Amino acid sequence: MSRFFSEKYASLSPYVPGEQPQDRKYIKLNTNESPFPPSPLAQSEAAKALPRLELYSDTMSAALRRELASFYGLKPEEIMPVNGSDEALDLAVMTFCDEKHPALFPDVTYGFYKVASSVYGVPYEEIPLDPELRIRPEDYSSSGKTIFLANPNAPTGIALPLKDVETIVASNPETVVIVDEAYVDFGGESALCLIPRYENLLVVRTFSKSRSMAGARLGFAAGNAGLIRDLDAVRFSTNPYNVNSITMAAGIGALRDEAYTQKNIRTITENREFLTRELRALGFELPDSRANFVFARLPGFDGEKLYLALKERGILVRHFSSPRIRDYNRITVGSREELAVVIQTLRSIIKEESK
Amino acid sequence: MSRFFSEKYASLSPYVPGEQPQDRKYIKLNTNESPFPPSPLAQSEAAKALPRLELYSDTMSAALRRELASFYGLKPEEIMPVNGSDEALDLAVMTFCDEKHPALFPDVTYGFYKVASSVYGVPYEEIPLDPELRIRPEDYSSSGKTIFLANPNAPTGIALPLKDVETIVASNPETVVIVDEAYVDFGGESALCLIPRYENLLVVRTFSKSRSMAGARLGFAAGNAGLIRDLDAVRFSTNPYNVNSITMAAGIGALRDEAYTQKNIRTITENREFLTRELRALGFELPDSRANFVFARLPGFDGEKLYLALKERGILVRHFSSPRIRDYNRITVGSREELAVVIQTLRSIIKEESK
Repeated sequence: MSRFFSEKYASLSPYVPGEQPQDRKYIKLNTNESPFPPSPLAQSEAAKALPRLELYSDTMSAALRRELASFYGLKPEEIMPVNGSDEALDLAVMTFCDEKHPALFPDVTYGFYKVASSVYGVPYEEIPLDPELRIRPEDYSSSGKTIFLANPNAPTGIALPLKDVETIVASNPETVVIVDEAYVDFGGESALCLIPRYENLLVVRTFSKSRSMAGARLGFAAGNAGLIRDLDAVRFSTNPYNVNSITMAAGIGALRDEAYTQKNIRTITENREFLTRELRALGFELPDSRANFVFARLPGFDGEKLYLALKERGILVRHFSSPRIRDYNRITVGSREELAVVIQTLRSIIKEESK
Repeated sequence: MSRFFSEKYASLSPYVPGEQPQDRKYIKLNTNESPFPPSPLAQSEAAKALPRLELYSDTMSAALRRELASFYGLKPEEIMPVNGSDEALDLAVMTFCDEKHPALFPDVTYGFYKVASSVYGVPYEEIPLDPELRIRPEDYSSSGKTIFLANPNAPTGIALPLKDVETIVASNPETVVIVDEAYVDFGGESALCLIPRYENLLVVRTFSKSRSMAGARLGFAAGNAGLIRDLDAVRFSTNPYNVNSITMAAGIGALRDEAYTQKNIRTITENREFLTRELRALGFELPDSRANFVFARLPGFDGEKLYLALKERGILVRHFSSPRIRDYNRITVGSREELAVVIQTLRSIIKEESK
């Protein structure tokens, strides 16, 4: 770091996104991308925005707010579009966390919550998942803290039932509970339906996964109009024109082509069941996933070693080195062809190892 | 604000972007947009990115860094692309300002510097422009503060000569000097050439103005590799996938179509001279502008009244209510046709008034 770097970041260790190596062509199953292109309607709507880019995008993304509201049965003032859901999480830390309202999240979850807390000097506490890597709702009751829950959780893929989410929200009336539903479309239960009843619930969603728009950067936060007003105030002070016009148009197109999204979700869900079955047949242990990835370990086989063996053979998966989960690898549910190669490759790695 | 809003924002007043009324069709000269569409090459490169949006954008925007470096004669590690130049300014406040390094900027300048300082609790000081609304370089020497200078300045349009910028950078070796060159392509002198010699200089640029890409959201920060590493570290902790793939492609296309940009700049510069001449003929006072807008007052005519009279007649300009500049209006240099209507309308407003 340069000598000009503010001392407040002395202990900062930035979030590390999944690698994107350029050295060769990989079967890329490390960042939970969709194997399908974005909806043709999303693409054509985006293309229509290109000739008018000389005009600023709408700071309120009003047309998209209306479209999202109508799609999800909410009010436009209960929704804030963002430049990728990380921006919503970042703004939520800024807006609802401070010395008096530390952040609280599981010890095994999306790494960004810890990073975003650190960068703003927000104290945080991590609650261990149970031995089966599950969230125990009772651990979060009356916490006095701003809670971040990924549901389904990442990188485990395990979903928390809606009634448990509601229990957590209801038992923390004085603090905001942020439910990060990046993967909910693949089999989780969304908490969006609870928004009219709880003024302390903020749901964060993304277009990156089920809608195949990771490269367009689009997400949204949904919650009580009061929470959204707060977030907008901070957003106007940090990056008021946060969502570009092309992505806004693509988002509207995607929402109007729900049949396409649902078809892809069905295929990914079927592929996930195939992958789960085949991995278990090879001796892997993995929790039932409700996401577009699985989180698997092979007893007796080092997680990092397996990650490296796959990488050497042209398959990228995600390995995390933190102690509790170092035996695991997270594998994105790719196309059926990709997954068949994964299974075949794993079989040959295991065979070589046992020689 | 909701009861969950962090108390640290008790005194926050967010940045107010130029209005975008939906009630009727205006001649819109209030947010310094280009009257020209983005380059055809920018549009076609952007269109090519649409079918692959299921993949995440590159967190380092490496291809765009390389293209910018080659275009501006810098190294890729001296450049960080951002989701609009406001994001670079926001990150600069986070990274280089704190209690010990307050922010420093003119009393009349881009309002975002004050807003971004406030949101992070960074102390700031404003130095009055001289009576002719000019920056006095000597006011900024050995300041001990992180300096933000818009050059040309907004909303005045007045440019600071490169030698004066260098004097300020050289006399503040212990703090970062951020030069915001949003409007430099319209006649200012860029400080990019100073980067190899000063490790404390950060230049911020945008594709919103001369490259007609306001709706795509693209800007970049350029400076010593050490400063860029610092900014990237904070960016990775707040929004690592900040620039979307479509905009990245559009930016590369725009850089490869410099002839188009230069042609537009010539036209806008000619139109600015036309507007300046005509306004002065009507009795307006305005400094020589080096931007794509002019900042003008009509002695004896209230600035807000003039703004409202224009708005009523379908012409939107930007009025600021802060005491020193309330007599002025900022008028974007639109197309020749638009400007002819502006002049004609002003003439009739003045005529009605003098009856």
